[in-house]
Amino acid sequence: MKLPVSTEWLLHCATSLAQLEPGTTASAAQLAEYYDLPAPYLAKQLQSLVKAGVLSATTGPRGGFRLAREPAEITLLQIVEAVDGASAPYECREIRRQGRGALPAEECRQACILAVKMAEAHRVWRGSLAAVSLADVLADLPPSAPARTRSLLTGQTRPPGEDALR
Amino acid sequence: MKLPVSTEWLLHCATSLAQLEPGTTASAAQLAEYYDLPAPYLAKQLQSLVKAGVLSATTGPRGGFRLAREPAEITLLQIVEAVDGASAPYECREIRRQGRGALPAEECRQACILAVKMAEAHRVWRGSLAAVSLADVLADLPPSAPARTRSLLTGQTRPPGEDALR
Repeated sequence: MKLPVSTEWLLHCATSLAQLEPGTTASAAQLAEYYDLPAPYLAKQLQSLVKAGVLSATTGPRGGFRLAREPAEITLLQIVEAVDGASAPYECREIRRQGRGALPAEECRQACILAVKMAEAHRVWRGSLAAVSLADVLADLPPSAPARTRSLLTGQTRPPGEDALR
Repeated sequence: MKLPVSTEWLLHCATSLAQLEPGTTASAAQLAEYYDLPAPYLAKQLQSLVKAGVLSATTGPRGGFRLAREPAEITLLQIVEAVDGASAPYECREIRRQGRGALPAEECRQACILAVKMAEAHRVWRGSLAAVSLADVLADLPPSAPARTRSLLTGQTRPPGEDALR
């Protein structure tokens, strides 16, 4: 039972984007450089966050990604399920209905208690991740984090006065 | 994030073994026939439950598998982790320490908040499955289940008086 390696990437990228000034964006290339990740694959993964409504993507020379909603409205669960899908790890194939021990249909009207308990575990896992927003994550970072993130993530390509100096 | 298909097999096999009379066993072949499962692969998987201390295996002509402990002492978590291992689905590769945005070591003394929250979700998942024992599962079955299971799982190959009739 493994989540894709890119789960960590996207949790961190979303956290970084949550620290940008409103209206600013970061490109997939900038995020890839910031975390030393493979840019083409990261770009594809970022699109899955766009599809999930977590990020919006803008095009053009200054285009890139930004949060589609307030950090308090984006949960870790939304990010994780954008990457991995929302299906439960346990699959009940109803083996109770097959083989020599197959239960008659009238005894299978209720869901199998094993499937019910496995689903309950998945529900509490989802609930735990749904209870943590990007705002909660930001609140745990040192106060200096947002300025540092902005400077290192988008600063070099767009420092103040860059156009005037060139 | 998927559990192996055999997770369902072993949860059901352990539940069936929990319904046998004390001292009796069922073979991998009997369990495979009972649930219409591939016997050689099931046998291998049952060994993982033996390794985990959930089942004991006895050899010889009447040999087979039985619970190694009381049903109340065996949890769904033990069975699931016997099949799939106990490692957490989220892997933190510390990407916060790499790339242009790499955090200095002194800012990484504490675990990454994202890794902490992902670990917490895994902890509640484990807790949910650890809270359900095979005794709880048995308590949810209809009262007629144990007699039916015994008869169909081990009855046909060893009915009372079988040897005398042949």
